[in-house]
Amino acid sequence: MQMVNFNEEQIIANGAVIYNQRPKIEAIADSIWKNGFDLLLFTSSGGSQAMLDPFAFYIRHMSRLPVESVLSANLMTGDCNRIGPKTVAFLTSKSGNTAETVEAARWLKAQGVRLFAAVGQADSTLESICDDTVVYGAGRPQEMIFYLLIGRLLYHSGDFEAYPRFADELQGLARALAEVRKQADEKCRRYALDYCKEPYNIWIGSGDLWPTAYSYSMCVLEESQWIRTKSVSSPEFFHGTLELLEDDVCTTLLLTEGPTRAQDERVKSFAARHTQKLTCFDTKDYELPGISDEFRKLLSPVVMAAVLQRISKNMEQITGHSLDIRRYYRKESY
Amino acid sequence: MQMVNFNEEQIIANGAVIYNQRPKIEAIADSIWKNGFDLLLFTSSGGSQAMLDPFAFYIRHMSRLPVESVLSANLMTGDCNRIGPKTVAFLTSKSGNTAETVEAARWLKAQGVRLFAAVGQADSTLESICDDTVVYGAGRPQEMIFYLLIGRLLYHSGDFEAYPRFADELQGLARALAEVRKQADEKCRRYALDYCKEPYNIWIGSGDLWPTAYSYSMCVLEESQWIRTKSVSSPEFFHGTLELLEDDVCTTLLLTEGPTRAQDERVKSFAARHTQKLTCFDTKDYELPGISDEFRKLLSPVVMAAVLQRISKNMEQITGHSLDIRRYYRKESY
Repeated sequence: MQMVNFNEEQIIANGAVIYNQRPKIEAIADSIWKNGFDLLLFTSSGGSQAMLDPFAFYIRHMSRLPVESVLSANLMTGDCNRIGPKTVAFLTSKSGNTAETVEAARWLKAQGVRLFAAVGQADSTLESICDDTVVYGAGRPQEMIFYLLIGRLLYHSGDFEAYPRFADELQGLARALAEVRKQADEKCRRYALDYCKEPYNIWIGSGDLWPTAYSYSMCVLEESQWIRTKSVSSPEFFHGTLELLEDDVCTTLLLTEGPTRAQDERVKSFAARHTQKLTCFDTKDYELPGISDEFRKLLSPVVMAAVLQRISKNMEQITGHSLDIRRYYRKESY
Repeated sequence: MQMVNFNEEQIIANGAVIYNQRPKIEAIADSIWKNGFDLLLFTSSGGSQAMLDPFAFYIRHMSRLPVESVLSANLMTGDCNRIGPKTVAFLTSKSGNTAETVEAARWLKAQGVRLFAAVGQADSTLESICDDTVVYGAGRPQEMIFYLLIGRLLYHSGDFEAYPRFADELQGLARALAEVRKQADEKCRRYALDYCKEPYNIWIGSGDLWPTAYSYSMCVLEESQWIRTKSVSSPEFFHGTLELLEDDVCTTLLLTEGPTRAQDERVKSFAARHTQKLTCFDTKDYELPGISDEFRKLLSPVVMAAVLQRISKNMEQITGHSLDIRRYYRKESY
């Protein structure tokens, strides 16, 4: 059977949209490095924050650079006490007009914070506020912007010597992720067929894949398929949610190739004994042609996003519930 | 009707167990202040981490003191890059033998970090590793230990001038929280009767009450009543979970008196329009005899815990499912 809603050429072309901006993105990183900084602050909302969070994670794990990741809504109410005269903030929003993110950008700007934004639409409010903006349009995956930007910063700080090779390989990332989609499709279609009507779905992940577990369940299954979920991180699963497991409780575990993999394996071993409906999606199962093994540990979020997209694409076809239907989101004011 | 499983004298006596250790706790704070620190690190697991998190929140909101809150499991895999020669860590565990927390304590100790623990049982592993330990035994609420310890640090840093009065008033905290339980019982019993069989329960909270929403739903409803939940913070609710709301979706909102209250009020206004099964628990609704209004904004977590305890106590009686029954937790190894 042919893959539903899959256009390989388009995926590769969308990768080029971002990779082609590498010189611009690296120049921004160079300028940030040259000016110095007292804090690298990642702030956005919802799925956009979840996309950014792994980059704060990589900075923490690879360096001593000062870094914080704070939801824009919480930033505005005082949840970061490290903002200083040399702080640099990184924001992202597909529309460029997400209310809390725009408000946070204005508030940071008023304090003299340097602002970088990755935005889908040109000429958005966010772009008008920020010092540097990369407009990605149809470019995917958006994470590539931050692999280049943050990778280059970590290269300058001496924490990521292999960055130039890594960045060169990113030219082939979109193609590799198209291959991942092909490898994952059959399993994901089966998953969508089996579980699209489950009354409750536990989603589990850790480390650089915790934001993926959190946002895929909330921003895709809940928001665009109206499917009920509970997401919990792998270590926290053992402090409560484990008690819900029974043979018929649908449980989905994401396994990362990052430093928290053992946390996921612990869940896998436990859950396999206590539910018949356990599905594990493991980035390790997917070949990434053209990407060196040494860089795989940095790429779990984009590999997993490519896998999970095959659930979404199949599920909307199976349920007849388009991913674009909303009851309330951006349809009424609140 | 008489309140189920409620012993006011015992509650007041349990408060005294902790308040009586005020001199010891303040002496520890004084010593920490005198020695200086480069980071205040809160690390534990599950519900214990959720109990600590508001204190990291208060430090961030009231001061520029360096602070981090990191799950012990994540700390061990490299999720904090600020540990230094003068770091002080705060840990808590009822049993004093929670695996990840103990492991984190050992790992921190090996790096020369000064360790403070609040532990329920005397002579635990955690106590044997830590520099300073407060054993609380039957003492409740355990948060009082940290109000005294962290309050005193913020007093020394010049960020909490009113601390001495606040600490004096804490002598009456347990009594005030017994009054809260009486004020809340009828509503909570009704809640337990109405919703103890709901197939899915959305729990929402923000700021210093987000840890309460997270841990009450996971560590009480899931773990000890096997009730399915989804917890989400008030700002994040609007980035996905809102789409699940329909007339019959059981939704429980906690409203704080802290700086994020407006986030909760936004949820209240939206949810009231889209489900018939919305319950709001608002700390503002409860009188705290003997506690000055100016300190209420610091006490939302303990006030809400007192309220929610009335759900638990009523629910176990109604469902006949004791809060102490477990399928797996600490019953099998994993």
